[in-house]
Amino acid sequence: MKAAILGYGTVGSGVYEVLQKNADVIEARSGERIDVKYVLDLREFPGDPAADVLVHDYECVVNDPEVRIVIETMGGVKPAYEFVRRALEKGKHVCTSNKELVAEYGSELLLLAKERKVNFYFEASVGGGIPIIRPLCECLTADRILEISGILNGTTNYILTRMYNEGADFNRVLKEAQGCGYAERNPAADIEGFDAGRKLAILASIVTGRRVEFGDVVTEGITGITAEDIRYARAMQAKIKLIASAVWEGESFYALVAPRMVAAGHPLYAVDDVVNAVMVRGNMLGNVLFSGRGAGKLPTASAVVSDVIQAARHADENTGLYWSGTRIVPESIRSMQSRYFVRTDAKNRQQAELLFPGLEQIDAGMEEEFAFLTGRMTEGEFAERVEELDRIYAGFRFES
Amino acid sequence: MKAAILGYGTVGSGVYEVLQKNADVIEARSGERIDVKYVLDLREFPGDPAADVLVHDYECVVNDPEVRIVIETMGGVKPAYEFVRRALEKGKHVCTSNKELVAEYGSELLLLAKERKVNFYFEASVGGGIPIIRPLCECLTADRILEISGILNGTTNYILTRMYNEGADFNRVLKEAQGCGYAERNPAADIEGFDAGRKLAILASIVTGRRVEFGDVVTEGITGITAEDIRYARAMQAKIKLIASAVWEGESFYALVAPRMVAAGHPLYAVDDVVNAVMVRGNMLGNVLFSGRGAGKLPTASAVVSDVIQAARHADENTGLYWSGTRIVPESIRSMQSRYFVRTDAKNRQQAELLFPGLEQIDAGMEEEFAFLTGRMTEGEFAERVEELDRIYAGFRFES
Repeated sequence: MKAAILGYGTVGSGVYEVLQKNADVIEARSGERIDVKYVLDLREFPGDPAADVLVHDYECVVNDPEVRIVIETMGGVKPAYEFVRRALEKGKHVCTSNKELVAEYGSELLLLAKERKVNFYFEASVGGGIPIIRPLCECLTADRILEISGILNGTTNYILTRMYNEGADFNRVLKEAQGCGYAERNPAADIEGFDAGRKLAILASIVTGRRVEFGDVVTEGITGITAEDIRYARAMQAKIKLIASAVWEGESFYALVAPRMVAAGHPLYAVDDVVNAVMVRGNMLGNVLFSGRGAGKLPTASAVVSDVIQAARHADENTGLYWSGTRIVPESIRSMQSRYFVRTDAKNRQQAELLFPGLEQIDAGMEEEFAFLTGRMTEGEFAERVEELDRIYAGFRFES
Repeated sequence: MKAAILGYGTVGSGVYEVLQKNADVIEARSGERIDVKYVLDLREFPGDPAADVLVHDYECVVNDPEVRIVIETMGGVKPAYEFVRRALEKGKHVCTSNKELVAEYGSELLLLAKERKVNFYFEASVGGGIPIIRPLCECLTADRILEISGILNGTTNYILTRMYNEGADFNRVLKEAQGCGYAERNPAADIEGFDAGRKLAILASIVTGRRVEFGDVVTEGITGITAEDIRYARAMQAKIKLIASAVWEGESFYALVAPRMVAAGHPLYAVDDVVNAVMVRGNMLGNVLFSGRGAGKLPTASAVVSDVIQAARHADENTGLYWSGTRIVPESIRSMQSRYFVRTDAKNRQQAELLFPGLEQIDAGMEEEFAFLTGRMTEGEFAERVEELDRIYAGFRFES
């Protein structure tokens, strides 16, 4: 079976490498040999093993009926969307690692794949190498899914882990992470929670069977987190993690990416460094956790190739991965419930105790502050009450 | 689609409950309604919701052509093997939670299922509710699997967690666990590692594609673990866990269930109480971890029902889960490499330092003992050297 790789960057060259190095096991598991007939990239790669199959024009890929599987690893929606759409229209399977593409055009491309009896797969778009899309569709099927909460962005988890270990501020760690290539020059997509938000939109679309738009996911970034916040987290035996979370209650659901205080004992507490993890809570199953090195060239490529194998196994049928184009809008998070950690000025102590009866004081040895943990209440309730306090230094949702 | 449940014990009644309570999502995901036409059990269950469909004779189940899916939750091989074989021969799909059955007759039943173009599924036989069988077969397919290590037995993990938290000896905790129903009256299958060994044999069979016999898995139990061992584990910032591990090196592999010292930072270190976890290491992927509440009525039932849904989706085809009947025997663990933790008499210090140059002394405040961690060496080498020391109080493999 002939395949083509679109984009010979980190993931694309990783896919090429996995297909070469593990050719024997891949052939055994696919039932046939997977040959890369083309690698499409605008650049030249003299001396590279893929140089022989390198092409610069998509037309020769999309118009070659021998190519049954198109592997899209370019990233971004332009021209990836156009290329993927045309491949599906020609009856080719598409496997992609491109979360922007899936978050934005997933429902359209899934429908097209279904109509043409081919598959549009994107295991690598969420959690890199960790299997989560297929387990959600084929394993966790007996349950009503109540919650998916995950650490879906390795860069921010790396930054937060270093902040925690070193008691350091966000900006210093970000600069160092940029210096050694762990964070991008323009880090907004990671640190503002957009990347995690796109991945959450994909997972929520799978669970609800309808289109969850990234723009409807509330995102809060990690840029404001300070060394003092970390000090409190330590005092609480908690860590601050950027959690992407979708919670279902009956027909409605919430979708939020935000930094949270996560207590020791919570399944995501121990997920450090560049590790990603997805926790799924079902009404029968309880919690299951999938974790591993999310990003990275070869883990991501491994997930893409697992999709290629799946496509080869189901070369003549659509396997049913699908959500409809009908948009479903998450509830306003104002009615979402949580506990909250708040740092305020020491002079607010009495007022805080009136506003939040039963609060639990947190002592991290900073005398000029009064910090506390509230009971469970809605975001709306919390916002109203906390507004009464002046000089709020920080606030985080708390998960135990 | 009509199904029959064989055995109305904990898991069987859980399956019935999941099928009733989540009927709507199950129908949506299966593409059709799953009706339980029969529940087979020798006992009566007056007033139970399943009483209406209760039968006592397997003949009426196996001879009813309307029954397309047989759900076997009796446990044990007699009469489960006979019942399952006959169901497959009649062209019925079988979903089971029965690890003894799969470990002993898996290859024969898989072949039969393949010949009859039906499916023999057993997701619940390993890790209870945690998806691991299907992810291994359908997600982690691009990788050469190098290792599977897991905490596959909830009872022993519960006992070891309590021993760790309370600094208590094995026997006391076992008695209490038996008192509250966490451990069975005859606990040998759990505490001697046989249960975990059967599950490991199943996972190893899937990975190698050949029959790995339970009898060829080396098993060491947890009965000898003392409060002093725990004290040393704490001093090393480690925990003692019963680890089931298969390690592949080229064409050969090792299979061992044994208690190990697991250092903080190891993916299995944080897996406590009745939680199960399976770590899979691939040559491209690195480590991925699947964890969750393994056992328990509803989590296990959820995994069984996910198999039922898969069978309904693939009612007319075998989906390829298979290993051949050719037996593959693991290598002798004598050539397996590890580090070792040893407790010996204080008077052996000098000799130990000669036998294990570069050893790392471990101090847990017990002056009459000399305890140390060795470098990496084979089991054979270790056994030869350690034999030179008299009065060995304990020895564990060490994982970091």
